[in-house]
Amino acid sequence: MFATYEDVTVGATASFGEYEMTREEILTFAQQYDPQPFHTDEAAAEQSMFGGLVASGWHTAAVTMRLVVAGLLEDSGSMGAVGVDELRWPNPVRPGDVLSIEAEIVDKEPWREGVGVVPTRIVTTKADGEVAQTYVGRVLYPME
Amino acid sequence: MFATYEDVTVGATASFGEYEMTREEILTFAQQYDPQPFHTDEAAAEQSMFGGLVASGWHTAAVTMRLVVAGLLEDSGSMGAVGVDELRWPNPVRPGDVLSIEAEIVDKEPWREGVGVVPTRIVTTKADGEVAQTYVGRVLYPME
Repeated sequence: MFATYEDVTVGATASFGEYEMTREEILTFAQQYDPQPFHTDEAAAEQSMFGGLVASGWHTAAVTMRLVVAGLLEDSGSMGAVGVDELRWPNPVRPGDVLSIEAEIVDKEPWREGVGVVPTRIVTTKADGEVAQTYVGRVLYPME
Repeated sequence: MFATYEDVTVGATASFGEYEMTREEILTFAQQYDPQPFHTDEAAAEQSMFGGLVASGWHTAAVTMRLVVAGLLEDSGSMGAVGVDELRWPNPVRPGDVLSIEAEIVDKEPWREGVGVVPTRIVTTKADGEVAQTYVGRVLYPME
């Protein structure tokens, strides 16, 4: 999308992506990386505050990244990210939910010589309109 | 570790875990969730600012969660997390790096009826002593 820091337009927005969270992938990810009962065990999940199986927030974050790479970073000059602020999971993701992304360039500022940091707000929404995840990524772009 | 919010001791610390980031797992995770060239393509990674293949930050976060579940949350009363603040990746993780965790209870405060939130600082360190990742998770525990 943006080749360089100078190309970045503060306030620019984009909507893109579609990814179905299958029960199988929710279980596979959680068994490997987040084996809490409400992510790995249907019966235990029903007794939890979620009332049923939900995806790991880190799984939602990983899928979000996949959509962000395809919709925003691929063929851009992005050099990676220093980190993420205010990562929140306001509503759980359940088997069958389809995720898509809204992105907004919040700001831009010099970071170190030849590199700028671009705070980018990423909102992950389910097909029913509920927000599953929000964060502000601090993405690096080369300066001309 | 802690069964309830009342059990949580602010200032408590713990060190635990050991996880080797293999080249194969770095590539597999990145191909599925973060296919940027410096995570998936050895030759392209050498030309990037990292100078070689590095793990996705989201992969480091996922492995950190696995260690945190085993070392801190398993058999605790934890109800999940509302989110994470100040997620940072100060040094890249490369194939062969072994990750371990330091955790510190930063604070505790009521969240909503019957539930408290416990800001927990999680630092992921490589065997060479470099810090790979830091964040403060906002973990929920039931109140008595």
